[in-house]
Amino acid sequence: MEKVKLGIIGLGQQGGAYAGFIKEGRVSNIEIGAICDNHPEKRQKAKEEYPDIPFYEDYVEMLESGDVDAIVTCVPHYLHPEIGIEALKRNIHTLLEKPAGVYAKQVKEINEFSKTKPELTYAIMFNQRTNELYQKIKEIIDNGEIGAIRRTNWIITTWWRPQGYYDQGSWRATWDGEGGGVLVNQAPHQIDLLQWICGMPEKVYTKAQYGYQRNIPVEDDVTTILDYGNGATGVFITCTHDVMGTDRLEIHGDKGKIVVDDSKKVTIKRLLKPEKEMSATMTMHDVMKLYQGDGPGAIYEEEVLEFASVWGAQHIAVLENFAANILNGTPLIAPGTDGIYGVELANAMHLSSWLNREVTLPIDEELYLEELNKRRQQEK
Amino acid sequence: MEKVKLGIIGLGQQGGAYAGFIKEGRVSNIEIGAICDNHPEKRQKAKEEYPDIPFYEDYVEMLESGDVDAIVTCVPHYLHPEIGIEALKRNIHTLLEKPAGVYAKQVKEINEFSKTKPELTYAIMFNQRTNELYQKIKEIIDNGEIGAIRRTNWIITTWWRPQGYYDQGSWRATWDGEGGGVLVNQAPHQIDLLQWICGMPEKVYTKAQYGYQRNIPVEDDVTTILDYGNGATGVFITCTHDVMGTDRLEIHGDKGKIVVDDSKKVTIKRLLKPEKEMSATMTMHDVMKLYQGDGPGAIYEEEVLEFASVWGAQHIAVLENFAANILNGTPLIAPGTDGIYGVELANAMHLSSWLNREVTLPIDEELYLEELNKRRQQEK
Repeated sequence: MEKVKLGIIGLGQQGGAYAGFIKEGRVSNIEIGAICDNHPEKRQKAKEEYPDIPFYEDYVEMLESGDVDAIVTCVPHYLHPEIGIEALKRNIHTLLEKPAGVYAKQVKEINEFSKTKPELTYAIMFNQRTNELYQKIKEIIDNGEIGAIRRTNWIITTWWRPQGYYDQGSWRATWDGEGGGVLVNQAPHQIDLLQWICGMPEKVYTKAQYGYQRNIPVEDDVTTILDYGNGATGVFITCTHDVMGTDRLEIHGDKGKIVVDDSKKVTIKRLLKPEKEMSATMTMHDVMKLYQGDGPGAIYEEEVLEFASVWGAQHIAVLENFAANILNGTPLIAPGTDGIYGVELANAMHLSSWLNREVTLPIDEELYLEELNKRRQQEK
Repeated sequence: MEKVKLGIIGLGQQGGAYAGFIKEGRVSNIEIGAICDNHPEKRQKAKEEYPDIPFYEDYVEMLESGDVDAIVTCVPHYLHPEIGIEALKRNIHTLLEKPAGVYAKQVKEINEFSKTKPELTYAIMFNQRTNELYQKIKEIIDNGEIGAIRRTNWIITTWWRPQGYYDQGSWRATWDGEGGGVLVNQAPHQIDLLQWICGMPEKVYTKAQYGYQRNIPVEDDVTTILDYGNGATGVFITCTHDVMGTDRLEIHGDKGKIVVDDSKKVTIKRLLKPEKEMSATMTMHDVMKLYQGDGPGAIYEEEVLEFASVWGAQHIAVLENFAANILNGTPLIAPGTDGIYGVELANAMHLSSWLNREVTLPIDEELYLEELNKRRQQEK
């Protein structure tokens, strides 16, 4: 089988994991073409673990070496768009790590540029989209099985990080190093899934807390109200200080409800009649009977699904899908251009919290960048 | 045993239920002194069901008749404070139905007036405070067993009402008839419980929807972010259009977490060490071990409690407690002055939603009344 020669940019935790997967033969259609890291000490590590693989300190040199067909950007978030553009310019297929970037403006630049290279594969590492549980939920929603969405609610506070995590590097959890906290580092998975499954909101209001329970300048605790513009609303909650974190997603529709517990168990309740019809035809006497007599079980059918979670498998699935798109046009699970949604949402949450008012999407990108840069400056 | 002679003002659904409880001998220390209703057709109903009980159309006449020691106000919400003041003026003990009133200003008036009559019993029908489940949670919080609160989250959407409920009377679910929707009629129980257990927030931001799924001018869907002023935040969600409604309360503290499902099951997780200490001492390696190895169960002790819910019993318990306070000074479960908290919170939620911005408590009462009266006028 023909294999894609992948250039891994950044041999940190994530880049190291991908290199390992490929070396172990777990990614069927990819081989490592080259490794790049601008920290010279990584050369030694690469030499020991990947002695036959070319190593570069300069990523442009690697892009122009002929050693790679494609790259993955395992580097600080700010750099994803610019490295991606340089790669696409040189006709190298590009897989961005998530998030696609820190601010919407830079992500739009690479998205625009990618349109000038339609023959290239441009994708993003939204590994959670390969999770069968979320694929199933998306299918149920897309099929209209629970009707139009009225409310979404995700409490995703399982991203516990001790202070030691933040103290690993001076760039961690800073405005200048990463461009934010939990919204930029941990929650992008769920922010993408929420918009992928339930659509983008038109407005958001966010209460975020900066350095609430950790000694960091960025947000470690976020509560957001989403307004989908058609009456439907939602809540998104995340934080990094709940060591017994909750992961509970509820989606309430005209004709049913889905509850996901711990990203493992899905409870789907499908109403026998749409709620609107029940409202129009039932009396309070019927209601009393319903809740005291037969129990609400009489009005819906319940289905419970359990899923096993295999984390490494998800990243491998995205890598293989990326290569399959390059090799034979297999549709992408996560096109690179999709990265903008999560970045826009995270930016909107930051901006709403900074201005303490509801903001409308798309937000004012210049204002966002100005406010972000203010915070980067203040850190210095 | 000496009994309190209670005057029941309003022989509608609630007043009728209380009269029934007393007639059936379920309220040990109360007898019906008189019944009052300004709808003349209720005289016939009273005559049939309570032939020996004096009936009045004018409540002032009843207050001055000598037939009653105490009253309960089962009348439209707007009237609770003024009837209460008239009763206290005539040295009649007063039990307000919930909510204490529609707007904070009128509730403060009766609270102020009640202070001039310290010898009288002034209470409010917060029947849910007699619920052993919520008493237990309050005790756990008050004892500091889960430490300082970091986050509260109550999804209480079990208040389903069909359109027929709203069509029962032209005053129902109108600004002029009731002063609001789910915040004034259904959710006051949980609004009181939340503040009783977790304290009052300093600020709220609310997204409310008016006539979203029901043909009513008032709110049938509410999402609120609470800011407790010390870093702790919360979310309160309620609506009347979810026929498979959710009732899930989560309270996350420095040292543990409480989750209540369906007001029946309480799961309490107590950390073996405070989270701050874990954050300060654990490495990311420990974290990986924690989540992949022993599982997070190794860091906490879990207790699960199940409670049976007996609804009528709660109202009877408040009636008996009210009478016991009159007869022998038994401490009140819900002093009348406590009614202000729920009204202030509901008012703040309305006002925030009307102004589409976060509001600080106590809110501007005059502005609230002005905005409320605008909506009452527009209905006419």
